[in-house]
Amino acid sequence: MENKRPLILVSNDDGIISKGISELIKYLRPLGEIVVMAPDTARSGSASAITVTEPVSYKLLRREVGVSFYKCSGTPADCVKLAFHTVLDRKPDLVVSGINHGDNSSVNVHYSGTMGAAIEGCLKGVPSIGFSLCNHAPDADFEPGGKYIREIAARVLEKGLPSLTCLNVNIPDTKELKGVRICEQAKGLWVNEWENLTNRGGSSYYWMTGEFEGTDIKNEKSDHWALENGYVAITPTTVDVTAYGLIDELKTWF
Amino acid sequence: MENKRPLILVSNDDGIISKGISELIKYLRPLGEIVVMAPDTARSGSASAITVTEPVSYKLLRREVGVSFYKCSGTPADCVKLAFHTVLDRKPDLVVSGINHGDNSSVNVHYSGTMGAAIEGCLKGVPSIGFSLCNHAPDADFEPGGKYIREIAARVLEKGLPSLTCLNVNIPDTKELKGVRICEQAKGLWVNEWENLTNRGGSSYYWMTGEFEGTDIKNEKSDHWALENGYVAITPTTVDVTAYGLIDELKTWF
Repeated sequence: MENKRPLILVSNDDGIISKGISELIKYLRPLGEIVVMAPDTARSGSASAITVTEPVSYKLLRREVGVSFYKCSGTPADCVKLAFHTVLDRKPDLVVSGINHGDNSSVNVHYSGTMGAAIEGCLKGVPSIGFSLCNHAPDADFEPGGKYIREIAARVLEKGLPSLTCLNVNIPDTKELKGVRICEQAKGLWVNEWENLTNRGGSSYYWMTGEFEGTDIKNEKSDHWALENGYVAITPTTVDVTAYGLIDELKTWF
Repeated sequence: MENKRPLILVSNDDGIISKGISELIKYLRPLGEIVVMAPDTARSGSASAITVTEPVSYKLLRREVGVSFYKCSGTPADCVKLAFHTVLDRKPDLVVSGINHGDNSSVNVHYSGTMGAAIEGCLKGVPSIGFSLCNHAPDADFEPGGKYIREIAARVLEKGLPSLTCLNVNIPDTKELKGVRICEQAKGLWVNEWENLTNRGGSSYYWMTGEFEGTDIKNEKSDHWALENGYVAITPTTVDVTAYGLIDELKTWF
């Protein structure tokens, strides 16, 4: 009968020792059997990167009742792929990534290793969710979002998700969450992305930084708006990135 | 008057010394002024990864008439971001990435650093194209695709692309190209993704490999079908990954 409990694969991009993944496991624990395969080091900004120029490995860290912890030398997407190949004894019912220390709404979805793991689960045909909190601090307070995380995960376990879709869930950094909103990815871009620094000798190097310039921050349908206004933003996300609306136009070009 | 020539930013993920980027530059040269900012080493499988845990730097390698070559320590997406910040004296008219040594059609778009650079250009509001050849060999023959590459780039320079869209162009490895097809991203997944190897001592490590299992390889609209049948596959690609069709359903959940 134990096999009937849902099997949940958990990963992230901040690494297995981050607070966010520990909190996520705590919230998900009542929902099923959990297998954690997460990067052995911080892998922020990994997107859906995979490791192709060197091999990867993984290691069992410990087992608790209902949770097994593995660390992996690869990217978040590698973690999901390798877990399917090695430590999962059946196809999981859910892949959950996070909780990221930092906002993955809007265009950030493209750079996010948290979403890289969720997208990988989705590409493998498993309902998948990435959770992120809009606070980069290592000791960020994930607690206000906890009940939403558990509720969203439970709902996805119950109802599933259509193929080729996953959820990008972002939580504003406030104790006063107003509820959930279903959103569109906000349009916008990063500007002033680099801080210029100078080596001794005069050559330059650059640290990534930046400011987000939303072109539709006033669009109440956008995830950016939801976060700015205290709502948990659920942005349904597709892995079919075909721009269908452009096909007929392009056919006239050639 | 020289400023009136289109400005083209070129990057890739195989690194600045790969054959593919040299060939790309050759084909694009008649179309405008070219600035190359490409990774100093192979960065295959980088997706849209960005470097956030260390700084990046770049270096001028050489200037030729109409082409400046820079190498960058970062990912393909970093290259595009850093070029905008440093070496480009104005917004480019086109961002082109490639030519990748290997197929980036179908779900590969998610892992591709070639497309990572094109997506970055698109996110910056510039018409952007990623070109890939279905041959991994370092000395692959790019010549049959050359006239198509030049034609597609010229068409995009002339007509532009709608915001939030870019092109994922894949070229089959044949001398007998049948022409161009406008495609959808083929649905499918990678299976048997890891080769298991054993360290002395008995522990395991894993090299990524895999076989592509297309679920719609018979779909004549798919890029996979086009490539299998000798056509250059142009898949218009969106950076707005919202699954709009799921929004109303999700609203009933909460």
